[in-house]
Amino acid sequence: MSKTRLESFSDGVIAIAITLLVLNIDVPPAGHPGSLGHKLLEQWPSYAAYATSFLTIGIIWINHHLMISRLRAVSHEVLFLNLLLLLFIGILPWSTALMADYLRADAGSSLAAAVYGGSLLTMAISFYVLQRHILFGKHDLLLQSVDDRERASINSRNRAGLLPYLIATPLAFVSPYITLAISAALAIFYALPLRIAQA
Amino acid sequence: MSKTRLESFSDGVIAIAITLLVLNIDVPPAGHPGSLGHKLLEQWPSYAAYATSFLTIGIIWINHHLMISRLRAVSHEVLFLNLLLLLFIGILPWSTALMADYLRADAGSSLAAAVYGGSLLTMAISFYVLQRHILFGKHDLLLQSVDDRERASINSRNRAGLLPYLIATPLAFVSPYITLAISAALAIFYALPLRIAQA
Amino acid sequence: MSKTRLESFSDGVIAIAITLLVLNIDVPPAGHPGSLGHKLLEQWPSYAAYATSFLTIGIIWINHHLMISRLRAVSHEVLFLNLLLLLFIGILPWSTALMADYLRADAGSSLAAAVYGGSLLTMAISFYVLQRHILFGKHDLLLQSVDDRERASINSRNRAGLLPYLIATPLAFVSPYITLAISAALAIFYALPLRIAQA
Amino acid sequence: MSKTRLESFSDGVIAIAITLLVLNIDVPPAGHPGSLGHKLLEQWPSYAAYATSFLTIGIIWINHHLMISRLRAVSHEVLFLNLLLLLFIGILPWSTALMADYLRADAGSSLAAAVYGGSLLTMAISFYVLQRHILFGKHDLLLQSVDDRERASINSRNRAGLLPYLIATPLAFVSPYITLAISAALAIFYALPLRIAQA
Repeated sequence: MSKTRLESFSDGVIAIAITLLVLNIDVPPAGHPGSLGHKLLEQWPSYAAYATSFLTIGIIWINHHLMISRLRAVSHEVLFLNLLLLLFIGILPWSTALMADYLRADAGSSLAAAVYGGSLLTMAISFYVLQRHILFGKHDLLLQSVDDRERASINSRNRAGLLPYLIATPLAFVSPYITLAISAALAIFYALPLRIAQA
Repeated sequence: MSKTRLESFSDGVIAIAITLLVLNIDVPPAGHPGSLGHKLLEQWPSYAAYATSFLTIGIIWINHHLMISRLRAVSHEVLFLNLLLLLFIGILPWSTALMADYLRADAGSSLAAAVYGGSLLTMAISFYVLQRHILFGKHDLLLQSVDDRERASINSRNRAGLLPYLIATPLAFVSPYITLAISAALAIFYALPLRIAQA
Repeated sequence: MSKTRLESFSDGVIAIAITLLVLNIDVPPAGHPGSLGHKLLEQWPSYAAYATSFLTIGIIWINHHLMISRLRAVSHEVLFLNLLLLLFIGILPWSTALMADYLRADAGSSLAAAVYGGSLLTMAISFYVLQRHILFGKHDLLLQSVDDRERASINSRNRAGLLPYLIATPLAFVSPYITLAISAALAIFYALPLRIAQA
Repeated sequence: MSKTRLESFSDGVIAIAITLLVLNIDVPPAGHPGSLGHKLLEQWPSYAAYATSFLTIGIIWINHHLMISRLRAVSHEVLFLNLLLLLFIGILPWSTALMADYLRADAGSSLAAAVYGGSLLTMAISFYVLQRHILFGKHDLLLQSVDDRERASINSRNRAGLLPYLIATPLAFVSPYITLAISAALAIFYALPLRIAQA
């Protein structure tokens, strides 16, 4: 399997998952009582969730490209771990909708936000596991130009990237807004110019 | 990040957003009273909205290609501004559905059309900002073959392209049909042969 | 605009439209009275419509590739006519669902089947118009290897391909099953080995 | 038709089908009585079905790549058989949803699981038929480097791959859980490192 085809299939799944996010923003049914303006404002969690997940998946896409660009060869393990990563990216439209629909509900908001945080954490872990396999796997999958110091540095940055989600997920039980705020802040932080290469 | 991969990911998101538009055209439920012909005619705003948004996104795709073809290198800022542009393209299936569903409603039609006009305006602004960054950014991202006069000309054409949406959006509060008519006319105008390179 | 990018964007839209067809096959709601087997059999028009539209779009994809492979250069007219073709391909998931949902209904079945036939006809016409423009346009868009006789032959085959849909659409008012049967027969006929190059 | 375009279209359809699977996982409606945690746990068949179908389609994608990589030329038969294979892959989001929705229902669970098993079997058969045509077709479509022994070995491995689905489908009438368990076990088995080349 060539790197090109691995990339283009992964790009396809990531592009579809990122675009399906929009299906979670409701169009309030016409003809019901209540002003449309009020209804549109009330569903602000859907917009915040859309933007947060869109940026997060977009950053994962950039980092995925960096990760694959360092690959020398595609092994079966890489294919399988990459498939797992795509599986967890593919579930984000669902966890995003769950969090957005429950954020302002009387019951279930903490659990829904924790599921959202947990889905981001799981995705980050599967990214970390694939990256780690590429960096330190026994099959020597890396381009020779990546030296030991760079490997260690990439690995520790990836591991550090898990921390915010590890914190944001249980904090949903203090307030679901904290989970959303941390996730959104993280997406913006990584998108800012200074953080070029996170992967 | 190579230009090729930036283009193919952007193409993917744009192709999906343009194809998801069809999900907004309802199939009237079978077995209900009333003639199907009448129901199909009544939802003409959905067809108009589909065609308008389809052509608009299609033109953005053509212009996006022209913009990227002038790029020499992909910087982090380009990646981020492009992600923002995709985020605003990705939301169009929602704002298109909103406008179509409310156009003939007793209440909310002006707001819905204004949101639609505003979403097109936001997309055009994010396109303009990315284009401007490529044209005049300090990192010199352009191919050398693009001279100063051409830069200025592209930039002013892009800025002029914002004007119709700036007008169409507030006019929704006079009549939502005006917003749709301007957006549709604009899509047809840009699609006509004489307007080859708008970007 | 390179042929490659025109092809890959068109492939994207066609691949998405063909895959969205599955969303039109309902999962009967669990827990309602009535046997699942009966309900699954009752919605056979959905399966027939899925297969018919899937094969038809698949054949359009093959023919689209043949058409583009003869192109020497991409003009603005080609871009615009291709966008129109994609617009009519993109609407097929809707017209397919409409036909399938109404085929066995007491009222509206003929109109729904005529809309389906009409949407296939419109797609075939937009394909024919684009092909004709490539073959006989004044800008000489064709590869030199295509001689006059081949041009005429391709053009007349394309025009002949409109006929079945021209017949199938009004026959919906005799019986909607005729429209579906002609469309399905046509898809199978073109898919059979002997009809390699229809475009 | 080049192999590249056949691959990229097939990749597109497979990537979309795999990503549409997520639409089958419900977001329980907010504001209804009952705890969200309970509702999320109750729909575990949806998660199991998502993971099983995601891995299965992912493995088909890997094997599809291996199959096409051995091709020397693309014939019309290959195009048509590949289109049939895509048609059966494209229906999996529906059969996956059907099985998940009925697994715990009082009635219909066996039939739904049998339809799911049958849809996997049909996909595997269409894969086998395409592979067999490539391996033994009279047009000599294979790269010369594939010798007779390898052909026979690939073919018998593919045929053996039908067996589990042949067993899992009728066993749905003993218990639908058996069909899901066999399908899931098979997906995990093929994904494990030792089973590199199944196609």
